[in-house]
Amino acid sequence: METQKKIGILGGGQLGRMLLQEAANYPVETWVMENDPGCPAAHLCDSFVLGDIRDRDAVLAFGRKLDALTIEIENVNIDALFQLEREGIRIIPRPSALQTIKDKILQKKFYLEKSIPTSPFHILQSKDELNHHIGFLPAVQKLGTGGYDGKGVQLLHKQEDLHKGFDAPSVLEKMVELQKEIAVTVAINEKGETAVYPAVEMIFDPYLNLLDYQLCPADIPETTGWKAEAIALTVARDLGSPGIFAVELFIDRAGDVWVNETAPRVHNSGHHTIEAHFSSQFDMLWRILMGYPLGNTKAIQPSIMVNVLGSEGHSGAAHYEGLEEVLAMEQAFVHLYGKRETKPGRKMGHVTILGKDKQELLFQANKVKRTLKVVTRG
Amino acid sequence: METQKKIGILGGGQLGRMLLQEAANYPVETWVMENDPGCPAAHLCDSFVLGDIRDRDAVLAFGRKLDALTIEIENVNIDALFQLEREGIRIIPRPSALQTIKDKILQKKFYLEKSIPTSPFHILQSKDELNHHIGFLPAVQKLGTGGYDGKGVQLLHKQEDLHKGFDAPSVLEKMVELQKEIAVTVAINEKGETAVYPAVEMIFDPYLNLLDYQLCPADIPETTGWKAEAIALTVARDLGSPGIFAVELFIDRAGDVWVNETAPRVHNSGHHTIEAHFSSQFDMLWRILMGYPLGNTKAIQPSIMVNVLGSEGHSGAAHYEGLEEVLAMEQAFVHLYGKRETKPGRKMGHVTILGKDKQELLFQANKVKRTLKVVTRG
Repeated sequence: METQKKIGILGGGQLGRMLLQEAANYPVETWVMENDPGCPAAHLCDSFVLGDIRDRDAVLAFGRKLDALTIEIENVNIDALFQLEREGIRIIPRPSALQTIKDKILQKKFYLEKSIPTSPFHILQSKDELNHHIGFLPAVQKLGTGGYDGKGVQLLHKQEDLHKGFDAPSVLEKMVELQKEIAVTVAINEKGETAVYPAVEMIFDPYLNLLDYQLCPADIPETTGWKAEAIALTVARDLGSPGIFAVELFIDRAGDVWVNETAPRVHNSGHHTIEAHFSSQFDMLWRILMGYPLGNTKAIQPSIMVNVLGSEGHSGAAHYEGLEEVLAMEQAFVHLYGKRETKPGRKMGHVTILGKDKQELLFQANKVKRTLKVVTRG
Repeated sequence: METQKKIGILGGGQLGRMLLQEAANYPVETWVMENDPGCPAAHLCDSFVLGDIRDRDAVLAFGRKLDALTIEIENVNIDALFQLEREGIRIIPRPSALQTIKDKILQKKFYLEKSIPTSPFHILQSKDELNHHIGFLPAVQKLGTGGYDGKGVQLLHKQEDLHKGFDAPSVLEKMVELQKEIAVTVAINEKGETAVYPAVEMIFDPYLNLLDYQLCPADIPETTGWKAEAIALTVARDLGSPGIFAVELFIDRAGDVWVNETAPRVHNSGHHTIEAHFSSQFDMLWRILMGYPLGNTKAIQPSIMVNVLGSEGHSGAAHYEGLEEVLAMEQAFVHLYGKRETKPGRKMGHVTILGKDKQELLFQANKVKRTLKVVTRG
């Protein structure tokens, strides 16, 4: 019997879940490792392995069963990935690219070294050093490692904010006077062929630093789009690895484009591609993992995506208030990640809306945001 | 902790697989029963139960664990479903509707009783009785029970064909002088609300009686579409059950519309709805099972769907010849069902193509059909 390829994912969250929904279109044997048997991806794979993705031996044992391995979160044991790569297992993204991105200090140095436009920065080893950079404020301090989903990022507007700073190796970045924040997702296969998704425009919650909604295509001048695309392609190519790379970019008041940061994997900024594009980011990653041709990144229709986050003040068994109203919206696609427990700001799902008119999309997105709440039953 | 609903599927084939891909958008605990642990749906549910869906005790034990139960194939133990319904478990479609449809004799009698246009027919108990109906030829003989995927159907053009007839309870239907064959899918929820998908036009392989490709929307006069829709709604409503009903219809040379047969479940004729419609047939069934509002049946774009069948003369481990070429087609969506073994005519996958122009869709569909072959490695 012809053997199906065995492909594994480190991490079993919603990105894994959506990867596995797409995997079911292909002849592939899927494996997932995560330390929570009730995680969103656990029941959608051929083989679920309970284990800590940060543990070297666990990742080695898992990877040795596979033909190829990918990640859905950066926080994995990278030594094990280097070892598995030496043993001939295809790791996508390559451990070298993951290593560069995983540590925000190395990531910033990489942009500098490759002449990729990024905001000015200082590298700090401890909190004390903040005092040497008072003239550099307003700035954003980012932990070198361990930050995720808005954690590990601290806005420092003025001297009085410095007490909030992190006392650990970090990057202190000059705050860019933002006009817009956009993201460009790039796919690269093992032959070095690339495909680029249209830029999306992102709007963040000012408190949680979590994505509120995102519009595709971004409402930016054509030339700005070209710049962003060229920069994103450079980032992805210079990382020297096949994979999906979500490049987050700032557009400043002058219209200049700067890289904020890159994720070497499927990413929140690409969720709309499931319904709005011919090949979704999840489909695309399987194509790369399987050695198939790259997919078509074109949009079928413009779209807007709203994250569904746990409401403030609610921790416990999740209840979706207003779900029926949103399900009745004509052009909305609802994705709930099956997490049984909600907590404030937790990513519980997302809703994508298709439509040809930007104002209509914004109206519908706001309706979703006002209507759908993740709460605990009172 | 709030309990997620437990919903089960009897049968674990490709329809179950595609149902489970969509289920991952909702907070639901999924269960599947099938007697093959390697079936296409086995690894995509929360709980897989190895068992025979035709066995009364097995179905009873399975169903009693659940809040609701559906089917992906008609050939299930119906006594058990009636019993489960009496015990308060929601069975969708209702066992009474399934019973009517499952036996083609009862199904034909139902159309007659409800004055639903269907081709003239005789009911036969044995092969001998064919000789009383020579003047009725050309006709189609269909087994009362046990037919599936082109099995259990015999074309009888003339007296010399009668030896091929079935020696079992069957329906002998007058062959309709076909102009077109179409299908209309209707969704009904527990409140009796309905939603209708646009008619699709079907072209069958004359030898295997398996769907070759199908176009959506069907290229038919508007008034014919209205007739078809009205008939399909009547069929679904008169069955007195919530669910998804795929109503296959003939359009004869005079433009009259006749019901061929109905499936009380998601169906091959609705595969294109995954990408081409706002709410797919699979999404729609979950909405009905979960008590959510019905989805939007409108098309995002016109589409064509091609079944990917095992090639003649090839039985064994499946190999997909030409897959890379089809994956490189810009508007094509490839679904392979992960069946490891191919055999002639076996449904191994399907490809949906989106596009605005009918001629272009036909051209692309033919390209898929000529290019993608399921063979064994030679």
